[in-house]
Amino acid sequence: MTILSAEAQSVNNVSFSSKQIDILEAYLELGLKQGVAGITLQKNAGHLKLSLGTIHYHFGGKKNHGLLDSALIYVSQESFKYISFNIEQQETNANFNGVSTYIHTLFDWVSIKQHHALFWIYYFYLSTYDERSRRFNQAYLDMVHQRLRAMIVMGQKKGFYPKFTIRQTLIDQLFTQIMGSLLLASHDPNKENFQRQEKSAIAACDTLIKAMS
Amino acid sequence: MTILSAEAQSVNNVSFSSKQIDILEAYLELGLKQGVAGITLQKNAGHLKLSLGTIHYHFGGKKNHGLLDSALIYVSQESFKYISFNIEQQETNANFNGVSTYIHTLFDWVSIKQHHALFWIYYFYLSTYDERSRRFNQAYLDMVHQRLRAMIVMGQKKGFYPKFTIRQTLIDQLFTQIMGSLLLASHDPNKENFQRQEKSAIAACDTLIKAMS
Repeated sequence: MTILSAEAQSVNNVSFSSKQIDILEAYLELGLKQGVAGITLQKNAGHLKLSLGTIHYHFGGKKNHGLLDSALIYVSQESFKYISFNIEQQETNANFNGVSTYIHTLFDWVSIKQHHALFWIYYFYLSTYDERSRRFNQAYLDMVHQRLRAMIVMGQKKGFYPKFTIRQTLIDQLFTQIMGSLLLASHDPNKENFQRQEKSAIAACDTLIKAMS
Repeated sequence: MTILSAEAQSVNNVSFSSKQIDILEAYLELGLKQGVAGITLQKNAGHLKLSLGTIHYHFGGKKNHGLLDSALIYVSQESFKYISFNIEQQETNANFNGVSTYIHTLFDWVSIKQHHALFWIYYFYLSTYDERSRRFNQAYLDMVHQRLRAMIVMGQKKGFYPKFTIRQTLIDQLFTQIMGSLLLASHDPNKENFQRQEKSAIAACDTLIKAMS
């Protein structure tokens, strides 16, 4: 079992004011149109009709994370809340299908919160050269790993999967398939492609689980 | 079988002068340290000790693709050359292992040409909001699809795989697994992680192929 790093814990503990959430949402919405790399604080301020000083006040200084890191923390928290809530719903009624339920919920999130999901691909690129971003993102990836394992355990308890020892190699393979499907969904963000990627990821993960069980 | 789009053909047909290659290599090397999003022509010129006018001359104007598109075309061509050459080598000696050979060669490329491979993740993000980049990248992805199919066909001819009908769903699943492994390799670019992702992708693809054959 992965133990949450200091960064993962800090991701969980940060909370945002409603003003901060407004600014982050505007930033991510703007990113959907032109990419976040080109968004200056000035542009974001203009977009929100706020002063540059106000944005600095909310995201500058030592006590706050910057806009980019805050956006990742915010997106992580929101996606986790969304996914947890929806999985719990599906557990209580009879729709629970193990890892397929997770993938389906994840793609619902991608469809509904495109400005969050697509931003995440940028964060992956940022992580290729920025050590701090990598640690933040890794903290989130660790949580996804734990979630995947939990989905199989729950599936076993409910009799949906046979009882087998869940090896880390299986979790890694499922995780890679799901990350790949998110990347390819984001690459061409439209409903048809989302459905295609979701279906393909569900089928592949199903095959991978069956082969290991 | 996918038919190459006009963009795929144009990707194949562009050729670069040695001066242009020097500029692209410098741009990609600089991107490895600070990300390509923040690189201005000015910075790249400074890095190369060239004048801004020289870079404009080589990558500006209607007859040329811009620096970003040129970098993608260059990276596509180079990776394709590298991978084709190495797969042919392994075909002639007895090391050919079908899709595993492809994955191994791909990860060799990632290790040796990190500044090319990591740039590609940025291009994926660019494709989320820029239509033109998406078409260029899609052209490259189509070629990878064709390559994957060819690896299975070749594996069947050599008796490495049993003869089965290669369905598009299998190619999609392998492709997603490999893209996911590249994303996760890039996310934490070091030798140990590259080896881990390569091993995991090979095992997963092997399982997916076996299940379909």
